[in-house]
Amino acid sequence: MESTFTDRFPVRIYWEDTDAGGIVYHANYLKYMERARSELLARLEVSQQDERQRPDGVLFVVVAVDLRYHRAAVLGDDLTVVTTVSKLRHASLEFEQNIFRGDERITTGHVRVACVSAATMRPTVIPDTIYARVSELLSTDSN
Amino acid sequence: MESTFTDRFPVRIYWEDTDAGGIVYHANYLKYMERARSELLARLEVSQQDERQRPDGVLFVVVAVDLRYHRAAVLGDDLTVVTTVSKLRHASLEFEQNIFRGDERITTGHVRVACVSAATMRPTVIPDTIYARVSELLSTDSN
Amino acid sequence: MESTFTDRFPVRIYWEDTDAGGIVYHANYLKYMERARSELLARLEVSQQDERQRPDGVLFVVVAVDLRYHRAAVLGDDLTVVTTVSKLRHASLEFEQNIFRGDERITTGHVRVACVSAATMRPTVIPDTIYARVSELLSTDSN
Amino acid sequence: MESTFTDRFPVRIYWEDTDAGGIVYHANYLKYMERARSELLARLEVSQQDERQRPDGVLFVVVAVDLRYHRAAVLGDDLTVVTTVSKLRHASLEFEQNIFRGDERITTGHVRVACVSAATMRPTVIPDTIYARVSELLSTDSN
Repeated sequence: MESTFTDRFPVRIYWEDTDAGGIVYHANYLKYMERARSELLARLEVSQQDERQRPDGVLFVVVAVDLRYHRAAVLGDDLTVVTTVSKLRHASLEFEQNIFRGDERITTGHVRVACVSAATMRPTVIPDTIYARVSELLSTDSN
Repeated sequence: MESTFTDRFPVRIYWEDTDAGGIVYHANYLKYMERARSELLARLEVSQQDERQRPDGVLFVVVAVDLRYHRAAVLGDDLTVVTTVSKLRHASLEFEQNIFRGDERITTGHVRVACVSAATMRPTVIPDTIYARVSELLSTDSN
Repeated sequence: MESTFTDRFPVRIYWEDTDAGGIVYHANYLKYMERARSELLARLEVSQQDERQRPDGVLFVVVAVDLRYHRAAVLGDDLTVVTTVSKLRHASLEFEQNIFRGDERITTGHVRVACVSAATMRPTVIPDTIYARVSELLSTDSN
Repeated sequence: MESTFTDRFPVRIYWEDTDAGGIVYHANYLKYMERARSELLARLEVSQQDERQRPDGVLFVVVAVDLRYHRAAVLGDDLTVVTTVSKLRHASLEFEQNIFRGDERITTGHVRVACVSAATMRPTVIPDTIYARVSELLSTDSN
């Protein structure tokens, strides 16, 4: 299933985010993308803290990332992470995530996450309730 | 000058904030306190990015920290950093910062920052305009 | 029990460690101190990964930190964390940790850690075997 | 120019590296890869701290990253970052970096870095001396 569902998440750049080059340290953009995906799950009423503590809980772990850095963000910048769920599969999800400063695109990421058992960390299918919510969200917003 | 001025800043806990103990990694609370102090400066119309690039700009660097960890925060927690400017001196500032989850106090920090020249990183007096704004804020809010 | 046992641990400063002020971000020194304490435990044949997975395992969580920043470290610096176990109690340990660049003292920290059950994260006494190893180490090296 | 030059760099996993899933937080592997590239530059007698302070200094900024996560590393793991300089161009470099735990491959990254002026952060050609050293290294080790 593919869609054009999008979600917007704000990030402000603090000292912790920057490096001695005066710009945001390149690995940190992965954090902002993860925050945005976590907010999306929260909006779908998936509590990752509950999931990681339940015997039959599931987590989503990153299995592949493709990042392009277009421009550098700096201290004090207000960024927006724009997230599209690009693919929903039985045991994995794919996201396209673009980070903007106003109209300027700073970073583009394609991120694939796999569903794993919280107890064993082994791959498993996405539970029906979560699958249905993502699916519904996609069909609703893709118009 | 002492006051009871307080400021509240929200922090949500993501995966990046936690460690394999299942709780927030202890060093990260210093980041949340710094974010809150940066927001306070922004509210006083001090742009740290401008300051660090101007020849006569100033930065505030941490020179002493005292932290007490009362409880552990976990994934998904919504915390609030409550910041009090406890002392304003000619070349330094002191803050008391308490981090709460609802009514529970998670962490208490006392942080002293010194004013330094952005060009040389050497100690210098707080510029009059910044001093006046902090001073005004304190007298306004301390009632 | 007090002692003058000391341990030395090297840290090199990379881009990830610095911020836009051109110096090491203040919270990161807590990471270097933690790495040094972890190495000390490893040397005492305490596997923290085993402890956190065993039902009766214990972890050491930081409950209080006092930090003084004397000088700033920069990109490429080779630092040394010098760790002294300053107190061994039944359910907690205290460390003094100084970070040096050559002869220059960069940061001083006093860190108190409490022993907690890995399963419940509640305070517990330090297991006899670990207590004995720390104790032996202190008496051996304090001459 | 392509080569099979390789370099090995050790990384030990501490609490700071892990998250509440009990494994290394996915963004952190980018840090280990950057540490390994920094060590490679140091070995070529390029001081990044000097470069960032000299008017005609150059820095290498990451412009593209492709990561595959094969397995999860955990607390206490001893990893090795194996780095191959896969392409040397006039204004950029490409690396293949594999992270191993013993014989197990944990993560594979392809990283492209561009040479920029430290003063302006704009793209520039790799200085002759640095280019020659990378080039020599490649031809020496590619046998």
